[in-house]
Amino acid sequence: MSLSEFDLIRQYFSAATAARDDVILGIGDDCALLQPPGGVCLAVSMDTLVEGRHFRPGADPVALGHKALAVNLSDLAAMGAEPAWVTLALTMPTADTDWLRGFVEGFSALAAQHGVQLVGGDTTRGPLSITIQVQGFVEEDSALTRSGGRPGDRLFVSGQIGDAALALARATNSPSSAEEAGYLQQHLDRPMPRLALGRLLRRRAGAAIDLSDGLLADLGHVCSASGLGARVELGRLPVSQAVAAECAAGRWQYALAGGDDYELLFSVPEAKVADVLRLCSGADQPVQEIGCLVDEPGIVLVYPDGHASKEIPLGFDHFRD
Amino acid sequence: MSLSEFDLIRQYFSAATAARDDVILGIGDDCALLQPPGGVCLAVSMDTLVEGRHFRPGADPVALGHKALAVNLSDLAAMGAEPAWVTLALTMPTADTDWLRGFVEGFSALAAQHGVQLVGGDTTRGPLSITIQVQGFVEEDSALTRSGGRPGDRLFVSGQIGDAALALARATNSPSSAEEAGYLQQHLDRPMPRLALGRLLRRRAGAAIDLSDGLLADLGHVCSASGLGARVELGRLPVSQAVAAECAAGRWQYALAGGDDYELLFSVPEAKVADVLRLCSGADQPVQEIGCLVDEPGIVLVYPDGHASKEIPLGFDHFRD
Repeated sequence: MSLSEFDLIRQYFSAATAARDDVILGIGDDCALLQPPGGVCLAVSMDTLVEGRHFRPGADPVALGHKALAVNLSDLAAMGAEPAWVTLALTMPTADTDWLRGFVEGFSALAAQHGVQLVGGDTTRGPLSITIQVQGFVEEDSALTRSGGRPGDRLFVSGQIGDAALALARATNSPSSAEEAGYLQQHLDRPMPRLALGRLLRRRAGAAIDLSDGLLADLGHVCSASGLGARVELGRLPVSQAVAAECAAGRWQYALAGGDDYELLFSVPEAKVADVLRLCSGADQPVQEIGCLVDEPGIVLVYPDGHASKEIPLGFDHFRD
Repeated sequence: MSLSEFDLIRQYFSAATAARDDVILGIGDDCALLQPPGGVCLAVSMDTLVEGRHFRPGADPVALGHKALAVNLSDLAAMGAEPAWVTLALTMPTADTDWLRGFVEGFSALAAQHGVQLVGGDTTRGPLSITIQVQGFVEEDSALTRSGGRPGDRLFVSGQIGDAALALARATNSPSSAEEAGYLQQHLDRPMPRLALGRLLRRRAGAAIDLSDGLLADLGHVCSASGLGARVELGRLPVSQAVAAECAAGRWQYALAGGDDYELLFSVPEAKVADVLRLCSGADQPVQEIGCLVDEPGIVLVYPDGHASKEIPLGFDHFRD
């Protein structure tokens, strides 16, 4: 990019987010200088969204600015970390000011909501792609990990799952009603990172992960990291009416393998379940028990009619590709 | 990418770099957990390299792995920071194992040399692009900034400048001899971040910056951040024989605006010059005085024949685009 375009972009981003006291030096030098509080760990996560892969060409830039930050904050939520700083590498074909204005709007609204400051990054010319790194704080012994599950832990999921995947499918195949389409699209475009939930699960949950790849894949990560298996009661999955209708027709893939939900999946030791449910209710954090962790490896699916199977439902593998 | 390709990539990177004691949790959970030492600032920098923009299609992946990390470490060097952790967002069109092997080789060799651990990142499918974020430590009051210059400070540059830009130009226009081409290409492909130099400049240098955009542009950043101007003696610029020949023919653009040098430009208060020169000599860090910072804004170029001008040399602007 020419210098003037670069300056333009810097101008859009320099005032994009709030000023934090722990940012000694922000955008504009060779490095940002940041002052972490003593005695805590930094929690660090990085994610890339590529046009044509993670979002369609022409996607709403406001939604993109929101989502690119949201998927990263969701990783902090899954560790129980407090968000603090973010860096942004933005590659774009031309310095499109309308697009930039929208992107910054979506990005900075979510950043402000969680007190996150943009402290640096890079802008380059090339095919549209967004890489974000977030950093937060968490005490080492209260961080939530994928490996913290124990046999007998009960499994919970927040919010509703499958809506984002169904939105994607409906956009390409059979359109929904306008009302339903809007509802589903909102879940695809505007995931809300479950930071408040992650916070209250510290020292209470066993394992935790955010749902980006889909329930079964992400539960698989937890099982593998914890050295356990799981039992999932399909009739208890928290789903919208639209996704429920798909499940009832045997199309479990949206709820089980949809991905892009950015809800939290977590396990809670039996002794702490009542405490967690009480706190979640008090904090308006909807959570639903969906099964438990077990010693035996593998994921057993218990269907609403009561039969149990380790078989992946029909059509699942195809959907994954 | 399919799961198997993703696993393959993870496998290539999981053992790519050394294990540091301050990495509580590395690759494989929602976030990395890192333990910064007490009482220091984090220095953070992020850079993207895009195929076709920052490197030619088909570029040697070993050199790319090196360079992508080197340009980021160079930013830490310019702050006087100790490198520690790195994250990598790699977007590639296909999971090309030969390419990955080469990239990891170049990346991990440089990481090992500086004790840097890869702690996380993302791999996605799309047009080839590499975003890296490095993090290091520096005490707040010893960090080198662009704004630390004072009038009368003497200006220094490390190593030699202009070789990378000349390598690029020769590759497209008039080829060099094989020997010269190899020498120049080495400077373009394998910049060595000046971390040792940055270290010894702490509390000694005034302003510092690494040369990524070219001497005049980066000196402009220092002048602007320090609220000063500068005087540069063109006859003192440290250049190779090949670049010297270009300068002698009036083609100053390689030395002045080449970019991609990743040498350090820094200012030193008069009283500390002898100390800095002695330390640099003892540490085998070649540095050359090239001028000074002055009160009056703007950059004055003093030509070898003694005439001084604020005019940018002919051909310069065209070269910048």
